[in-house]
Amino acid sequence: MIKRGSIINPEIQAVLSSSNRKEGIKKLFADMHPYDIFVLCEDLDNTQIAECIRALGVPAGIELFEQFDDDRRKEIFSCFSGEWMADILEEMSHDERADFVKNLSPEKMEEILPLVARAERIDIKKLIEYKEGTAGSILTTDYASLPPNISVKEAIEKIKLQAFNRETIYYIYVIDSDRKLLGFVSLRDILVAPSQKLIEDIMHKNVISANVNDDKEEVANKLSDYNFLAIPIVDNDERLVGIVTVDDVVDVVIEETTEDIYKYGAAGEYIDYMKANPFNVARQRAFWLLFLIIVGSVSAFILQKNTYLLETVVALSFFTPLLLGAGGNAGTQSSTVVIRGLAVGEIEMEDVFKVIKKEMSVGICVGTFMALVASVMASWLDKDPRLGFTVGMAMIFNVTLATSLGAFLPILFKKFKLDPALMSGPFITCIVDVVSLIVYFKIATIIFA
Amino acid sequence: MIKRGSIINPEIQAVLSSSNRKEGIKKLFADMHPYDIFVLCEDLDNTQIAECIRALGVPAGIELFEQFDDDRRKEIFSCFSGEWMADILEEMSHDERADFVKNLSPEKMEEILPLVARAERIDIKKLIEYKEGTAGSILTTDYASLPPNISVKEAIEKIKLQAFNRETIYYIYVIDSDRKLLGFVSLRDILVAPSQKLIEDIMHKNVISANVNDDKEEVANKLSDYNFLAIPIVDNDERLVGIVTVDDVVDVVIEETTEDIYKYGAAGEYIDYMKANPFNVARQRAFWLLFLIIVGSVSAFILQKNTYLLETVVALSFFTPLLLGAGGNAGTQSSTVVIRGLAVGEIEMEDVFKVIKKEMSVGICVGTFMALVASVMASWLDKDPRLGFTVGMAMIFNVTLATSLGAFLPILFKKFKLDPALMSGPFITCIVDVVSLIVYFKIATIIFA
Repeated sequence: MIKRGSIINPEIQAVLSSSNRKEGIKKLFADMHPYDIFVLCEDLDNTQIAECIRALGVPAGIELFEQFDDDRRKEIFSCFSGEWMADILEEMSHDERADFVKNLSPEKMEEILPLVARAERIDIKKLIEYKEGTAGSILTTDYASLPPNISVKEAIEKIKLQAFNRETIYYIYVIDSDRKLLGFVSLRDILVAPSQKLIEDIMHKNVISANVNDDKEEVANKLSDYNFLAIPIVDNDERLVGIVTVDDVVDVVIEETTEDIYKYGAAGEYIDYMKANPFNVARQRAFWLLFLIIVGSVSAFILQKNTYLLETVVALSFFTPLLLGAGGNAGTQSSTVVIRGLAVGEIEMEDVFKVIKKEMSVGICVGTFMALVASVMASWLDKDPRLGFTVGMAMIFNVTLATSLGAFLPILFKKFKLDPALMSGPFITCIVDVVSLIVYFKIATIIFA
Repeated sequence: MIKRGSIINPEIQAVLSSSNRKEGIKKLFADMHPYDIFVLCEDLDNTQIAECIRALGVPAGIELFEQFDDDRRKEIFSCFSGEWMADILEEMSHDERADFVKNLSPEKMEEILPLVARAERIDIKKLIEYKEGTAGSILTTDYASLPPNISVKEAIEKIKLQAFNRETIYYIYVIDSDRKLLGFVSLRDILVAPSQKLIEDIMHKNVISANVNDDKEEVANKLSDYNFLAIPIVDNDERLVGIVTVDDVVDVVIEETTEDIYKYGAAGEYIDYMKANPFNVARQRAFWLLFLIIVGSVSAFILQKNTYLLETVVALSFFTPLLLGAGGNAGTQSSTVVIRGLAVGEIEMEDVFKVIKKEMSVGICVGTFMALVASVMASWLDKDPRLGFTVGMAMIFNVTLATSLGAFLPILFKKFKLDPALMSGPFITCIVDVVSLIVYFKIATIIFA
C-alpha cells in the first residue's frame, strides 16, 4: 500500500508536464490498484486528475474516478468534454453511477443523459428512482445471470463473456425469460460440476433474496448473517432487479453506526461536518438542546419551591451538581450498554425483565458505593452528620433510578417501534435530574424537619 | 429466509424422535443454508443439535456447528464422542477452529488434540498462538494457492481440487517453494485468460498484503478501502501465512464500534452483558464513576466557597442544574461529532484549528440562543433582572467552553496517541461543570456586589 503524502507526488507532476503524458501516466500507474492511484492523485488539481483518468482510459481510469467521493467527482467531471462524460457514465459500475447522477443538477443531467447509450440511460433513470435508504438505492444491475436449461460447459462460456463488466461473477443468478429468479450457482459450484450437467440441476433453488423496498440496513445484516458475497434483490413479482455486494455492506454498517452515535450524543441528524458552516451546525444541534433545557427547567422550579430549605441549610445546594452528575453518568453507562445491546441483537425483547432487574441491582451496588464516597465528602465539608446522610440516601436512590431508567426507556422505545437510541445519555440524565431533585429535597425535609 | 420461532420447530422434534432420524433430518434440511438451519435449531437441546450435526455429516453438519457462538459450541461439543470431536476439528474452517480451541480448557485440549490429524493439529497450534487483536488472530490458513510456472489450464485443474475445502477460491495466491508471496490472480482473471498462458504472466505482481502482527482493525480497513474479498497475511519474511476474508471484516467493524460506543458512554471495557452478574457489571462501571465523582466533587468546594453569595441570593442555586445540564449536553454533542469524525477519517489532524474554530462559533451561536431562553426563565422565577443577566452571561460562556473543549480534548488525545473516545460526553461534562461554576459565581459576585 502507498501511504498518503508519498514522495511519488512530484513524479506525477513531472510526468504530467512532459511531452508524452499519456504513455508516462500509464507506465507510472501500471499494475497499481485503483485505490493506490487514488491516494497518489488525491491532492492534484481536478484538471490534472481528469488528465490521468483520460490517460488511463477504460477501465483503469473509470476505476480511479470511482474512488473519489461524490462532491469531488462532480468537480472532476466538469473538466471533461461531453463525449468523455458520456463514456464515464457508460463505463461506471451501475450503483456508483446512480449515486453520482442523483447528485447532479437537473440541468447537468439533461445536458449529459442524451449523450449516453440508450440502454445505460434507462438503467440510470430506473436506479435513481429508488427511495433513499432502501435496497434499491444501493443495488447494482451489473450482475451475472444464466438461463436454467444450459449445460455447465455452455455456462462457462457465457460467464467468460460477462466477466469483463459485471460487479461479480462469483455468484451467478439463474433467471427465466421473465427475469424471475429461479436459483443461484456460485462459480465454485460450476467449476467442480461435470461439464454435461444442466445448470438447473446444480443450482441452489432455495435462494435467499431481499425485496427492492427493504431497508438497506436489514439487507446488509442479512448478507452478513449468511456470509454471502452478494444478495439478489427482487421486485414484488420476484423478478431479479439487481444485487447488493458485500463491499457495500461495510459502507452501510459504518454509515448506520454514525447515525446511531449521533443519537447517543443527542447531536441531531448527520450532516457533512467539514463542509457545513457553524450556523447550520448550530441550528441542527439547537433543537435537542432546547428540548432538553425545557425539560431541565423543571429543576429550577423544584429548587425554587424549596427556597426555605435552601436558605436554612445552604449546604444542600453544594451537593446538587455532584448528585446529578453521578446520576447522569450512571444512567449514561446503563443506556449505552442497553442501546448497543439492542442494536447488535445481544439483548432481545424477551430478555426485558432480566435486563431491567440486572440494571436495578447494578444501580443498588454502584449507588451504595457512590453514597459512601459522597457522604464522606459531605461530612468533611459540613460538620452536620444529617447532611452526609441526606446526600448518601439521595445518591443510592438517584443512581438506582438512573440505571433502571437507562435500561427501561430504550427497551420501552423499542417496544413501541421507536428508535431506542433516542433514549441515550442526555435524555436519561435530563429525566433523572428532575426526579432526583424532588427526592433529594423530600429526604432533606424529613431529616432537617 | 426463515424467521426465528418458525412453526417448523415441532417438525424437527417429530423427526428427531422418529425411527429413521438420520434420513429425516437430511431431508428436512435439504438445500437449506446453514444459517437457516441454525435459526431453526437454535432453541433445541444441545444433545438434539449434536444429533442434527451428526445426521447432516460433512460439510453441512460442520457448517451448522460453526453458526453457534463459542460458548454454545462448547456445550454442543461435549455431547460428541472423541472421534466426532476430532472430525469436527479437522473439518472446521481454520479461523473458526482456532477461535474455538482457544476457548477450550487446557485439559480438554490435551484430551482432544491427539485425536486430530497431525497437519491439522500443527495448524491449530500455530493459529492459537497469535496475539489477540492482530491480523494473525483472525486469519485462516485454508486459502487457495498456485505455483507461478504452470499454465492457466493446469491452474484450473489445481483449483478444482482445492475448491472443496478452501475458504475462498476466488482469490488465489501465487507462492514459490518457500511460500514467499509472489502475486495473486482472481478466478475471474484465470477464467478469461488464454489457457496456454503461464500464471506468472497473468498474475498481479503488485500485491497488497498485511503483516501478521498488524492490528486487525487496520487490516479490516485496508480490505474495505481496496474492496477486496480477501487480503493475504504475510510474516516478517514476506511468506504467506494465511488470508483474512471480507466476512470477518464486518465482524471486526461491529466489534470495534461496540468498544468505541462503550467509551462514549464511559461504560468501561466490553463484557458479555447477558452472562455477567450484576456485581461484576457494577465493578466494571464503578471505576469511571469514581473518577468522575472525584473530579466533580470540586464543584461542591466551589459552591461552599460561595456560601455567602448563596445565602444572600438563594435564587442563584435554582439555576445551577439548568446551566450545568446545558453545558454538558452541548459538550456531549460536540465531542460526539468530533470523536466520530476522527474515527471514520472525516476529520484529519490537519483540520485541527478549523474544527476548534468551528466549534467555538457553534458554541457562541447556540450559547446565545440558550442564554435568551434561560434569561427569560430566570426573570419569570425571580423578579430581579440581575439574575437573568447573570444566568444568561454564564450560559454563553459555559456552552462555548463546552463545545470548544468537546472539540479540543479529543483532538489533543489523538495528538498524543491516546484514544480520542476517552474524551467523550461524561468527561467533557465533568470538566465543564467545574469551570462553569467558577465563572457563574465570578459573574454573580460582580453583578450582585
